[in-house]
Amino acid sequence: MKGCLISLEGGEGAGKSTVLEALRAHLECLGIKLLVTREPGGTALGEAIRSVVLDEQMGQVCAESELLLMFAARAQLVRELIMPALDEGTWVLSDRFTDASYAYQGGGRGQPEGRIAELEAWAASGIKPDLTLLLDVPVEIGLARAQVRGVPDRIESEQSGFFDRVRSAYRERAGLEPSRFRIIDSSQDIDSVAASALAAVDEFMIRQRDSK
Amino acid sequence: MKGCLISLEGGEGAGKSTVLEALRAHLECLGIKLLVTREPGGTALGEAIRSVVLDEQMGQVCAESELLLMFAARAQLVRELIMPALDEGTWVLSDRFTDASYAYQGGGRGQPEGRIAELEAWAASGIKPDLTLLLDVPVEIGLARAQVRGVPDRIESEQSGFFDRVRSAYRERAGLEPSRFRIIDSSQDIDSVAASALAAVDEFMIRQRDSK
Repeated sequence: MKGCLISLEGGEGAGKSTVLEALRAHLECLGIKLLVTREPGGTALGEAIRSVVLDEQMGQVCAESELLLMFAARAQLVRELIMPALDEGTWVLSDRFTDASYAYQGGGRGQPEGRIAELEAWAASGIKPDLTLLLDVPVEIGLARAQVRGVPDRIESEQSGFFDRVRSAYRERAGLEPSRFRIIDSSQDIDSVAASALAAVDEFMIRQRDSK
Repeated sequence: MKGCLISLEGGEGAGKSTVLEALRAHLECLGIKLLVTREPGGTALGEAIRSVVLDEQMGQVCAESELLLMFAARAQLVRELIMPALDEGTWVLSDRFTDASYAYQGGGRGQPEGRIAELEAWAASGIKPDLTLLLDVPVEIGLARAQVRGVPDRIESEQSGFFDRVRSAYRERAGLEPSRFRIIDSSQDIDSVAASALAAVDEFMIRQRDSK
């Protein structure tokens, strides 16, 4: 039986790291064989690309290059880790996946949606998550939380108008695929955010079971 | 008046470095304002990508990622250096350009030509060299020359079948665009190769002048 791919999405300060750890513990507790990964990154190539694309010393990076770098990391991650894991029945929990390119490079940087869709088809082999949790928080709340975390990377250093467009693009995608997305209100305190995320995953597993 | 873009292409051990320096000296001697660059590389982002994509320690890099990385470096190079230079009348001499992706990632790695053409259109802004010198040498001669140069990078470490496909793809491209390409027989000694390259550039400049 194939594994399931769950992606965790959201803007700055939405609580992704905490939720990721809660989900990891929860799924492992249920005896599910799990691979946890992140984007950009996850593989040796992907992590090397991550340090290039997020380097705050890199200066101006054109939107086209940023998009291509994200998909270069993703193409390797899909082929080296995600597809083999799913094929052998391992579940995959990924801190961001292709929706992040639609939100950041599409919404945020203005790269055309059709261009991203084509890259998704061939570079990411058209792989879609079975469940995507969108941790949604108003930009000003998220940025205030993120500020206490220390030095921001190149993308985290953008202006708030950028993050407004990212959030809108995420919400728009969730609206287009309501059966895949669960929007988690991440303006709540972090324990409630984590509890909502676990509940969404439990509900997904029940649906999975019932559909068999 | 816009500058001209001249690209230098060829497989391993074809003499690109020597020819590049001979061309640089020749064009500067003629009083032409010149920018010399290389691919992948040329910009801070491009050079960082170069060290990732050519790193022989990187292990398996999927063909899709390699293609995307080459175009990520190229997108930045085109926008940050090549287009501004050409616009202000500076000539650009580039050690490899998009034909290298058709040869290496297309011919060598089997990435579809249509995919490369699409990336060329949007990531490289459809920019084509005004003149491309293809330093063409039989694979066994080129590899024998390259072997004395020391530790090969990840792509230079490929098997000779790979370089056969690269050479064929280069020659095929030259055949499709005979007015842009000049094929230089690089099995000659290096002084003769450089002299042939300089003659091809001189002939190009005469054509340029006469077409005005």
